[in-house]
Amino acid sequence: MRHGLVIVNTGEGKGKTTAALGVMFRAWGRDFQTRMFQFIKTAGARFGEHRAAEKMGIPIEAGGDGCTVRSGDREQAAALAVELWARCREAILTGEDDIIVLDELAYALHYGWIPVPDVIETLRQRPEGMHVIITGRYAPQELIDYADLVTDMRVIKHPYRDQGIKAQLGIEL
Amino acid sequence: MRHGLVIVNTGEGKGKTTAALGVMFRAWGRDFQTRMFQFIKTAGARFGEHRAAEKMGIPIEAGGDGCTVRSGDREQAAALAVELWARCREAILTGEDDIIVLDELAYALHYGWIPVPDVIETLRQRPEGMHVIITGRYAPQELIDYADLVTDMRVIKHPYRDQGIKAQLGIEL
Repeated sequence: MRHGLVIVNTGEGKGKTTAALGVMFRAWGRDFQTRMFQFIKTAGARFGEHRAAEKMGIPIEAGGDGCTVRSGDREQAAALAVELWARCREAILTGEDDIIVLDELAYALHYGWIPVPDVIETLRQRPEGMHVIITGRYAPQELIDYADLVTDMRVIKHPYRDQGIKAQLGIEL
Repeated sequence: MRHGLVIVNTGEGKGKTTAALGVMFRAWGRDFQTRMFQFIKTAGARFGEHRAAEKMGIPIEAGGDGCTVRSGDREQAAALAVELWARCREAILTGEDDIIVLDELAYALHYGWIPVPDVIETLRQRPEGMHVIITGRYAPQELIDYADLVTDMRVIKHPYRDQGIKAQLGIEL
């Protein structure tokens, strides 16, 4: 019955990272071992998911520069992404986890910081039953082609855009 | 800063309920009080989310008949939805929770088991800071019009449909 899936949550809408956290919620209920790597949030981030994961004993490693490419230092962001990918790759190949989430990796692939073929080759070499979830905007077509399950989160209505409401604690943060 | 949102996760794709669970994960990390009502899963269901929620002290009340309308007894499903909605309404108006998730309610609205105006009127009467998340396919237009944040989860690729792979424990169950 166990069939390791490569799952991609992409699109401009909300819910890409959040749905990955939802999988970790379910999986924790089944005593599965899960782990998340975050390509945008910075080391030491203390958002809701970090606080929850700490209480639950789920490792989340944030290793980004906290910025999107438009606002940040592009070279630093790229270097951090390469470093973090090396740790992801090791975790995938070591194979101790049931589910590994690579949060915002799609973004790092889109900007060419990490080569897509390296990621696909690593995914091919993973243990048979391991699920890997990749989130982020702009998932490259090669990744979509390789993945098993791909969902596009589309905005129908967005309060920050439409009504000027700030991001809410516990919902997004 | 706290601005209670009505959030709708709809569409044919994966991640509607899962993203709601992800919000509960984050919110739990911030010691917010959350609660979920489920309109399709049956009382006593022991999926991953129920197991996790029990360990975390998050109430999930499942009160559906376990079937979609095509396969089940329509009258029984409608009666169960009405009963469960009465309890949701009470929880919303009592106002003790920071976030209430009405899982698969959109489905019950679409089939006319619960009148959309009743739901919108209840949402209007909720405490100012309360967030309510409604999931399910076929969210009615009136609900979309009233909501603050609406996301359409769209299928790009689906392994159960495309490859005949069964639902995976810890991912979906």
